[in-house]
Amino acid sequence: MIVAEAGTVYLVGAGPGDPDLLTRRAAWLIETATCILHDDLVSPEIVQLAGRDAIVRNVGKRSGHKSIRQETINDLMIARAREGHSVVRLKSGDPMIFGRAGEEIDALNQAGIPFAVVPGVSAAFAAASAARVSLTDRRGPCRILLTSGYHARVQSPEPAPLSSNATVVRYMPGSDYGRVAQELLNEGWPGDSNCLLVSSAGRAGQSICRTTVDGLAKAHPLPAPVVMILQPQQNR
Amino acid sequence: MIVAEAGTVYLVGAGPGDPDLLTRRAAWLIETATCILHDDLVSPEIVQLAGRDAIVRNVGKRSGHKSIRQETINDLMIARAREGHSVVRLKSGDPMIFGRAGEEIDALNQAGIPFAVVPGVSAAFAAASAARVSLTDRRGPCRILLTSGYHARVQSPEPAPLSSNATVVRYMPGSDYGRVAQELLNEGWPGDSNCLLVSSAGRAGQSICRTTVDGLAKAHPLPAPVVMILQPQQNR
Repeated sequence: MIVAEAGTVYLVGAGPGDPDLLTRRAAWLIETATCILHDDLVSPEIVQLAGRDAIVRNVGKRSGHKSIRQETINDLMIARAREGHSVVRLKSGDPMIFGRAGEEIDALNQAGIPFAVVPGVSAAFAAASAARVSLTDRRGPCRILLTSGYHARVQSPEPAPLSSNATVVRYMPGSDYGRVAQELLNEGWPGDSNCLLVSSAGRAGQSICRTTVDGLAKAHPLPAPVVMILQPQQNR
Repeated sequence: MIVAEAGTVYLVGAGPGDPDLLTRRAAWLIETATCILHDDLVSPEIVQLAGRDAIVRNVGKRSGHKSIRQETINDLMIARAREGHSVVRLKSGDPMIFGRAGEEIDALNQAGIPFAVVPGVSAAFAAASAARVSLTDRRGPCRILLTSGYHARVQSPEPAPLSSNATVVRYMPGSDYGRVAQELLNEGWPGDSNCLLVSSAGRAGQSICRTTVDGLAKAHPLPAPVVMILQPQQNR
């Protein structure tokens, strides 16, 4: 059993949403911290593990009426730690992928605040377990590319590298499946490649759609959050 | 609290080795299963969570004098489940990456054995947390390629795709760092790219070496298991 220490910030991965898929360390820190700053995607069941007297605040980019600037989140973490709080900065999945951990770590370092990072189960792995699909296989793909639909469009105009022996996982592919399917075909994916969509992996309301790149355009959009797993047909 | 069910097989991720980085579900299943079949890399502290009367067997490829064939492991899982055991097949990290989960799932399906998969924290994320290095960054890499040194040599003669905006994580890079450095230079990595080596991430005896691709050849080899994280220099 670990207790969150006063004056310290913990960047903690909340995993896919089911409290049973929290790490034991994450659960203990959430239960004992005096201040929790959490993202939108962290599930209510996990936020409810916080102590009765803890300050709990949703600092998600989509929370409330205005979006919260990253600098505001950094300042909040630092101010609460300086006041003597034990602060858990709680992020969906693993904190070191598709978040702003790099910027938060820089801010904590510059402010001289002691901090630790606690890894979590990232959505790609929760989705693979839920769908019982291995991400690598001696008989097939032997590496994994983790991408995000958001970054794919905003930051990375160059296409994801296609490889006959890679699994590609796209976080947050967006709901315009026709457009995504066309992008994949343009990137060189064969139309018969396996395309697996997992919504709310490891949460209540989980749903799974098994299709192909060709079939994707006609698939019924699943509710967010969605992870898309692409794998070439084996034995080609 | 979840209890492992008789006649069922659980493919469970043990995470990086620290029992506190087990998911709560994994810990409960290990504590209540009547049969544990675990890989070499699963730490003794985690194996010790098994119940006093549980059958515990190391089925790691490096265990004992002979290597165990995958078919033998499949047969063991199936036989124990048919005998009425609750079987935890315990794998280091996450079960769906760089293991034989695909083959085990096929065998369980063919045998009609009920099973479930429980994800875990994979070594890439444990290493990133330990070294406090974000794997993606709005100011830098926006995707992640997970590869293994073993597969790189045995299965995948084509080089890993290099991208100016990707983090590459190589599991088990091997101890011949001079050779690895040369491979990376041949793949097109600039010599000043950041190269982070994390040994025993999230375990007792963890060690971290921060170098560059150029510096790698002269780095002192760290004890296995090692994860290597490669990132391009920012602001190029």
